[in-house]
Amino acid sequence: MNFADRLDAAVQAKQSPLVVGLDPFLDRLPAPYAVVRDPDASRADRAQAVGDFLCAVIEVVADRVPAVKPQSAFFEVLGADGIQAWERVVAAARSAGLLVIGDAKRGDIGSTATAYAEAFLTGGPGLPSDSLCDCLTVNPYLGSDSIEPFVTACHQADAGLFVLLRTSNPGSAEFQNHGDPPLTHVVSDAVSRWGSGLIGASGLSSIGAVVGATHPSELIEMRARMPHTPFLLPGFGAQGADAKDVAHGFTKGLSGAVVNSSRAILFAGHGDDWRDATSRAVDETNDALRGALGVTQL
Amino acid sequence: MNFADRLDAAVQAKQSPLVVGLDPFLDRLPAPYAVVRDPDASRADRAQAVGDFLCAVIEVVADRVPAVKPQSAFFEVLGADGIQAWERVVAAARSAGLLVIGDAKRGDIGSTATAYAEAFLTGGPGLPSDSLCDCLTVNPYLGSDSIEPFVTACHQADAGLFVLLRTSNPGSAEFQNHGDPPLTHVVSDAVSRWGSGLIGASGLSSIGAVVGATHPSELIEMRARMPHTPFLLPGFGAQGADAKDVAHGFTKGLSGAVVNSSRAILFAGHGDDWRDATSRAVDETNDALRGALGVTQL
Repeated sequence: MNFADRLDAAVQAKQSPLVVGLDPFLDRLPAPYAVVRDPDASRADRAQAVGDFLCAVIEVVADRVPAVKPQSAFFEVLGADGIQAWERVVAAARSAGLLVIGDAKRGDIGSTATAYAEAFLTGGPGLPSDSLCDCLTVNPYLGSDSIEPFVTACHQADAGLFVLLRTSNPGSAEFQNHGDPPLTHVVSDAVSRWGSGLIGASGLSSIGAVVGATHPSELIEMRARMPHTPFLLPGFGAQGADAKDVAHGFTKGLSGAVVNSSRAILFAGHGDDWRDATSRAVDETNDALRGALGVTQL
Repeated sequence: MNFADRLDAAVQAKQSPLVVGLDPFLDRLPAPYAVVRDPDASRADRAQAVGDFLCAVIEVVADRVPAVKPQSAFFEVLGADGIQAWERVVAAARSAGLLVIGDAKRGDIGSTATAYAEAFLTGGPGLPSDSLCDCLTVNPYLGSDSIEPFVTACHQADAGLFVLLRTSNPGSAEFQNHGDPPLTHVVSDAVSRWGSGLIGASGLSSIGAVVGATHPSELIEMRARMPHTPFLLPGFGAQGADAKDVAHGFTKGLSGAVVNSSRAILFAGHGDDWRDATSRAVDETNDALRGALGVTQL
């Protein structure tokens, strides 16, 4: 089934648009995983602890959120051992019934873009498929011909993309809003075009866009420009956007957007009882989002 | 020593500005490594063959070029086994006296950008340092605050960056030339600014830019705008730019730019005698570049 429809179905089933960002900052993992901070521990031991922690997070959150978003950088920093942990975590999330949005922000041209799409979305002959993602974040700077191989992969594998459009960081306007009309208008039109052949029964396309909830007026503008484009909304919580801000990104009820939260969920607790704190953080975030979206849980 | 100075010294020592791109397209590896195309071969076996091939390439080219540029995508497609091969290839290149430009085109914000910089440039406590790169390609779309953690890493590790500015692909103007003045002018000013604190004795900065040799008039313009910025020039050979085109990117003699060639070197031969063909391709490319730059080999 089309990725956008799978995502929307998962959101409706869980009554939650919350995506848990799996960003395992090594210096913030709870006490039981402190080996990641031991400079004498081997890289393999540390990668094992990262994988153990995130698999435990997945267990805690799986029944109440539609998707997780592992952040590639925090695995790559542990080299080949880290990528092994990535594969384990992705497989665990899928087997727990979660959709996986790989946050790797890849962008390259021609056959190189195809190789990235194979690495994350379509796989290759003889390669394990249980560690492929359902969706990938990509960077559009190189132009339409750099995104097309990823779109082709989405057709092949019923996968999805979230294209960086207007990111949540303070400096994002510098290049993204260059020109008049701003570059974001040109990129948003391109995202709509790339996604036009992948619109599902939900009315949403499998080619989505990343729009920071930290810029509410632009989020409102982009929501109007791109009626079929699902949004991935970063910037909620730690970066300052609240549930009211992110509500602008949705089309109707819980549809049209997903909201990422990473640190506030993963590092809600620090000790042996971190699972309880993480579990409460999921419930509180879901309640805040449902409240702002005017949805009462069934 | 400052990366720009190390790169310039290596170019002068080898009398070559040629960077060999290590892009191991699985379907083009020479006959002795055909196991990479066997769908029944294990992923580990295929990654081993990719590593074997590239280590052999490094042996062939090491005495005649200053640097190699492994392309991350073709390793990532083989998962954790591929990253193990990446680490082996990078370590082999460094131990052969080559500089390593990691072609990963990363771009992200805050602590995530720092994690990428650690993964490729600075390492971390207890992590192996023989597989770090001397330099990394990065994508500027997210703005100055996304590049700063990489610049900080360059100060810490005497490393370098090549920031995507004007890429060699046919569709690159779509967003990169948006606006009046075009976005490339704004990005080029930012690259100069990011690099202003990292200018070495050579007069060149460790923060360089990727400018496609496929757009000669813009290359001339960028060379004039950015007198202290070294260029990495893709697009030579397979993508259509010739030695005369790339010459516009240099500042003086062999200085100020390096020229990437991947497929024309790696896949010059297809059979058991591929080493001879690759070796000849290096000599011919070096001769063509020296000729276009008016340099007679010592």
